[in-house]
Amino acid sequence: MTVSDLISQPLETIVDEIGGIYEHSPWVVETLFLKKETSKITTVSELAAGLKLIVNGASDDKKLKLLQAHPDLCEKVEAMKLLTVESQEEQSKSGLQSMKGEELDKFKSMNESYRAKFNFPFVLAVRNASKSTVLSALEGRLKNSSSQQEFMVALDQVHNIAWMRLLSKVNTDDAAGFLTCHVLDTASGIPAKKMKIVLTRLTPNESAGIIGEFVTNDDGRIEGGPALKGKDFIVGTYEWTFYAGDYFASRGQSMNGTPFLDIIPLRFGIDNPDDHYHVPLLVSPWGFSTYRGS
Amino acid sequence: MTVSDLISQPLETIVDEIGGIYEHSPWVVETLFLKKETSKITTVSELAAGLKLIVNGASDDKKLKLLQAHPDLCEKVEAMKLLTVESQEEQSKSGLQSMKGEELDKFKSMNESYRAKFNFPFVLAVRNASKSTVLSALEGRLKNSSSQQEFMVALDQVHNIAWMRLLSKVNTDDAAGFLTCHVLDTASGIPAKKMKIVLTRLTPNESAGIIGEFVTNDDGRIEGGPALKGKDFIVGTYEWTFYAGDYFASRGQSMNGTPFLDIIPLRFGIDNPDDHYHVPLLVSPWGFSTYRGS
Amino acid sequence: MTVSDLISQPLETIVDEIGGIYEHSPWVVETLFLKKETSKITTVSELAAGLKLIVNGASDDKKLKLLQAHPDLCEKVEAMKLLTVESQEEQSKSGLQSMKGEELDKFKSMNESYRAKFNFPFVLAVRNASKSTVLSALEGRLKNSSSQQEFMVALDQVHNIAWMRLLSKVNTDDAAGFLTCHVLDTASGIPAKKMKIVLTRLTPNESAGIIGEFVTNDDGRIEGGPALKGKDFIVGTYEWTFYAGDYFASRGQSMNGTPFLDIIPLRFGIDNPDDHYHVPLLVSPWGFSTYRGS
Amino acid sequence: MTVSDLISQPLETIVDEIGGIYEHSPWVVETLFLKKETSKITTVSELAAGLKLIVNGASDDKKLKLLQAHPDLCEKVEAMKLLTVESQEEQSKSGLQSMKGEELDKFKSMNESYRAKFNFPFVLAVRNASKSTVLSALEGRLKNSSSQQEFMVALDQVHNIAWMRLLSKVNTDDAAGFLTCHVLDTASGIPAKKMKIVLTRLTPNESAGIIGEFVTNDDGRIEGGPALKGKDFIVGTYEWTFYAGDYFASRGQSMNGTPFLDIIPLRFGIDNPDDHYHVPLLVSPWGFSTYRGS
Repeated sequence: MTVSDLISQPLETIVDEIGGIYEHSPWVVETLFLKKETSKITTVSELAAGLKLIVNGASDDKKLKLLQAHPDLCEKVEAMKLLTVESQEEQSKSGLQSMKGEELDKFKSMNESYRAKFNFPFVLAVRNASKSTVLSALEGRLKNSSSQQEFMVALDQVHNIAWMRLLSKVNTDDAAGFLTCHVLDTASGIPAKKMKIVLTRLTPNESAGIIGEFVTNDDGRIEGGPALKGKDFIVGTYEWTFYAGDYFASRGQSMNGTPFLDIIPLRFGIDNPDDHYHVPLLVSPWGFSTYRGS
Repeated sequence: MTVSDLISQPLETIVDEIGGIYEHSPWVVETLFLKKETSKITTVSELAAGLKLIVNGASDDKKLKLLQAHPDLCEKVEAMKLLTVESQEEQSKSGLQSMKGEELDKFKSMNESYRAKFNFPFVLAVRNASKSTVLSALEGRLKNSSSQQEFMVALDQVHNIAWMRLLSKVNTDDAAGFLTCHVLDTASGIPAKKMKIVLTRLTPNESAGIIGEFVTNDDGRIEGGPALKGKDFIVGTYEWTFYAGDYFASRGQSMNGTPFLDIIPLRFGIDNPDDHYHVPLLVSPWGFSTYRGS
Repeated sequence: MTVSDLISQPLETIVDEIGGIYEHSPWVVETLFLKKETSKITTVSELAAGLKLIVNGASDDKKLKLLQAHPDLCEKVEAMKLLTVESQEEQSKSGLQSMKGEELDKFKSMNESYRAKFNFPFVLAVRNASKSTVLSALEGRLKNSSSQQEFMVALDQVHNIAWMRLLSKVNTDDAAGFLTCHVLDTASGIPAKKMKIVLTRLTPNESAGIIGEFVTNDDGRIEGGPALKGKDFIVGTYEWTFYAGDYFASRGQSMNGTPFLDIIPLRFGIDNPDDHYHVPLLVSPWGFSTYRGS
Repeated sequence: MTVSDLISQPLETIVDEIGGIYEHSPWVVETLFLKKETSKITTVSELAAGLKLIVNGASDDKKLKLLQAHPDLCEKVEAMKLLTVESQEEQSKSGLQSMKGEELDKFKSMNESYRAKFNFPFVLAVRNASKSTVLSALEGRLKNSSSQQEFMVALDQVHNIAWMRLLSKVNTDDAAGFLTCHVLDTASGIPAKKMKIVLTRLTPNESAGIIGEFVTNDDGRIEGGPALKGKDFIVGTYEWTFYAGDYFASRGQSMNGTPFLDIIPLRFGIDNPDDHYHVPLLVSPWGFSTYRGS
C-alpha cells in the first residue's frame, strides 16, 4: 500500500493501519487526519513530518504520557528471553538478551536510575542498534544534567521509532529518493576521471550484496544518472568501494609501494526513501573526506 | 640483520646483501658506501634516502640505463606462466598472468607502445598491485605527453621497488615508527571521548587479524601511547573501525533510525617502519575526514 | 579580581559582584555558594559550569521565570534610542536601534509573535551580534515547531549572556587557555615546514592588531610553544594568515600564475580563556580545511 | 581580438601577435600553426594546451634552450631599478627591486648557485608574486636533489608565463568559464539555506570591489545561476564572505557568545577564463572546508 492509497482510506482504516506507530497513541494519527490538509500529503516523509508536528504541538503532559507509554527496555529484554531464538532475532539484533551477570546488573541499575531521574523510560530506536550502542546511549544519556534536554532527546527517539514502523507499513517503491556520487582529486584540483567504484548493500541482510560497479566520467561522476533509485533505493546500510590507488597510479602520481590510501571503503546509511543522498569522495593520496551532500 | 649491523660490514658484504635492490645496478650501493658519510646512517629510511640521492645525482645516461635494466613486464608475465601456481603467487598477487585474449593483447600492445614512446620499459612497483592497478597505470602513463615527466615517474617507481626490496633485507623490529589516532567531534568542536576503536591488520596475510581494541580518552586519543609500535609496526595495510554511532548515541545526539554514519571503517597503509603515522578521524553525524598527520 | 579571590569572599559580596549575571536571578549564585563544593572551583569555566548546573537542575517553572525576567528586545532597542550615541555603542554594536520603517515593523511584529508563541521574550546574546544576526535568529527561531526545543535554545542564550557578563567581572590573565596551530600539506602527506603565518586580533577593538609572525617548524607547528597564552589570550576574534602560496612555490609544486590558494585568511573566535584552542590548517594547492582541535 | 579572430590570421600575423609568449622562441607558435589541426582550436585554453604540447614534444636540447632564453632574474631586478617608479610597478609587484644589503646578497648568491647547479636561470611566474614568494621559491628549489625534476618545475613556470602573456593578448569576454558556490551544513547534514554570501574581487586592482551579495536557496546554492560569468569572470583573486554565524543563529544552534566561526572569509584565485570554478563551503559551527570543485 502506497502513502496515496493509505491516505485515501477512511479514518478508521488509517488508524488501524498506522495508529500504532506512536506507541499506544492512536491520537497522533487521528488528530492529523481530522485536519483538512492531509490531502496535500503524497510521500512518506510528508506523512511522518505531519505526524511529528502533531506530537510537537501537543501539551507537555501529552508528550510525557507518550513517552511513558513506551515499554521498559529491561522488561522487554526479559520478555524476549522467553521467545524462541528466531523470534528474538526478529525482535532485535542488539543482543541485549544475551547479557548476564555484572553486565546485566549494570544495565538494570542504569535503566532504573534513568527512569527515576527523568520520570520516563529509556527509549532508543533499537532496530539495528547493537548491545554496545544501547549501553553507550543509556550510560551517556543518564548523565544529562538537563531533564528538559533529555526529554527532547527521548522524544526524538520516539519519532525515530514511529518513522521505522511507518516505513514497514507502506510501500515506497516509487519514492523519489536516489543516490549519487562524485569523486574529486583534491591534490590536483580536478574531477577524478575513470575511477572504479563498487556499491554494496550491507543491510538489510535479505537484499545484501554487490549492487553495481561503476566508473567515473570526465566530471568525476557516475555516468547515466543515480547509482540507486526507485525500488532498489532501500533504507539500509551501504558501502562504496573506491579504487583510489588505481586512479593515482594511472596519473603517474608518486606513490609508495604500500600506498597510504589504495582501496577506500566508505560505509553509510540511507534512512529516507524520499531523499537525495549525495555521498561524494574528496581524495588526495594522503587523505580523504566525505559528507552527506545534496 | 639491522641497518646498523649491515653498514658495519665490509663493502663487499654490503653489496652482496643489498647491491641488487636497484635492478642490475650495484653501483648505487657501491657509490654510497665509498663515501665517508654513511657512518651517520642508523635507520632504513636514511639508508634508502642516501641511495636515492646517489641515483638522483647520477647522469641522465646512467639513470636511463638503470631504467632500461628493468625486465619487460610482458616477458616477466610470460615467464611466470611457466612457474608453478605457488611460485606465481609468490611472484605477484597482481593476477597479470591470468590475462587472456583481448585483454592480454591490449596489455601487450600498450606495453610495446610505452617502450617505443619512452625508450625504457614500463616499471611499476607491483608487490601488492592488482591487475587493474597495473592496467590503469600503464594506460594512464602511456598518455603522458612529456617524456621527461614520465622518466621521473618511472624513476620514482624504481625507488619504490628498491625500497620494498631493502625492507625485505633488513630487520626493522627496533625502528622508531608508531601509529597514533585522534578522534574529534566536529559537530560539537570537542574531542570525541570514550569512542570504541578497533585496529585490524589486513596485509601481509600471515600476520593479518585484529590487533587491538581501544577506547578514546578525554582528549579523544588512545590512552597509554601508540596503538602500534616496535616489531608490531609492520609495513602493510590496516583498518581502524570507529564506533561513531555509539558515540553519538551516548551524547543523545539526534540520529536517524538508520544513521548516515555508524560504524566507520578507515583503511590505510603503512609504508615506512621509521615514521610516525598519525591517522585521525574528524567526524560529525553527517561526514568525516581523515589524513596522514604527524 | 580573580576567580579564587572572588570565591573566598563572603556570600554577600559574591552575590553583589556576580549575582546579576543571570538576569534578576541572584538565586542562581546563592544556591551554588550555599553548597559546600564551591571550594573546588578554581577557574572561570568551572564557576560558569557550576552555575549552569544550578539553572539546569531547577524546576521548569523557575527556568521559565528566569527567561521571562529578561527584558523585551524591542523595548530595549526603543530605550537605547534615548541614549547618547556613545552609550548606544556601549550597549550594542548590533545597530538594531538604526532600524526604521518596514524593517522595524517586521522586527516588532516577529518579536511580538515570538513572545505570544513561546510565552517568554526573545533572548539572544547580542554583544557582538550584528543586526542581521539578530533578525536571522529571530526569524529562524520563531519557526521552531517545538516549544520545548525553543525553551532549550533560549536557555542556552541565557547561559551565554551570563558567561559574557561573568567574564567581564573577573580577571582571567592567569587562565590556562592557549592557542596553537599546525599546518599539514595534504597533497604530500607531510607537515608543512617553513610556512609563514601571521596572527591578528580583530576584536575587541581596543586591542586589535597584528600579534605575531611565525614560521612553522619541521613538524608544521609554531616553534617555542603557543602563539598566544596568559594575559594575551583574550576572548575575541582572531585571524591566522597562512602564506600557503609561498610554501608551495618553495616546493616547486606545479602552480598557476594566479594560484587557486595563495594567502589564506582564517578567521576564528576565542570564547573561553581556560581552553586550549588548536586551530590547524590542512591544505593542498586545491583546497583546505580547519576545525577547532584539541 | 578573440582566439577565433587570432587563429584565422596568416601565420605571420599570429607569430607577430603571440610568438613572444614563449621567451625568444617563436618556433613554438610557428610549429603549432604549421600543423593542420589548429582549426579545431576555439578557446584560449585549447590554444595554450596546443602550444604546451609542442614544447613538451620538443627535444631535451630545445627545451633547455627555451629555459636558457629566459633573462636572469637578478639582472632583471637590477635593470628595473633604472626604471621610473611607475614602470617598476608595471613590471612587477614583487618588490624585488627594494632588496638591499644582506637580503640582496643572499638573493644574488642563491640565484647564482641555482644557475650553476642546474645550468639554466631561475624562472618563476612573478606577476603577482611577492618578494617572499620569490625568495621562498628560489631557496626551496635550489635544494632540489634531482636536476631532472627541477627541469620539469622550471618548464612548468615557463608554461605559466606563456599562459599569462597569452591571456593579455586575447579577448576572453566570451569565454565559457563561470563561478558557482554551494554551502553544506555538515553538523546537520543538510544544505545551508538562506545564508548570506558576499563576493569581492581583490585583484586586479583596477576592477577590485564588491561584486555581489547573494543568499543561498533551499539547496544551499546561489539562485539564478553562476555568481560570475562572461566578461565579469576575470582572471584574478576573489573572496567569498560567508555569514555562517547568522545562519547558525537562525537555526537556534547552540553557539558561544564569541562563536568559533562567524563571518568566514574564503580567498581564492581564478586562473582560467574557460573553466568552471566551483568553490563550496562545508561548514559546521566548529570547522569548515573548501576545495576547487567542478
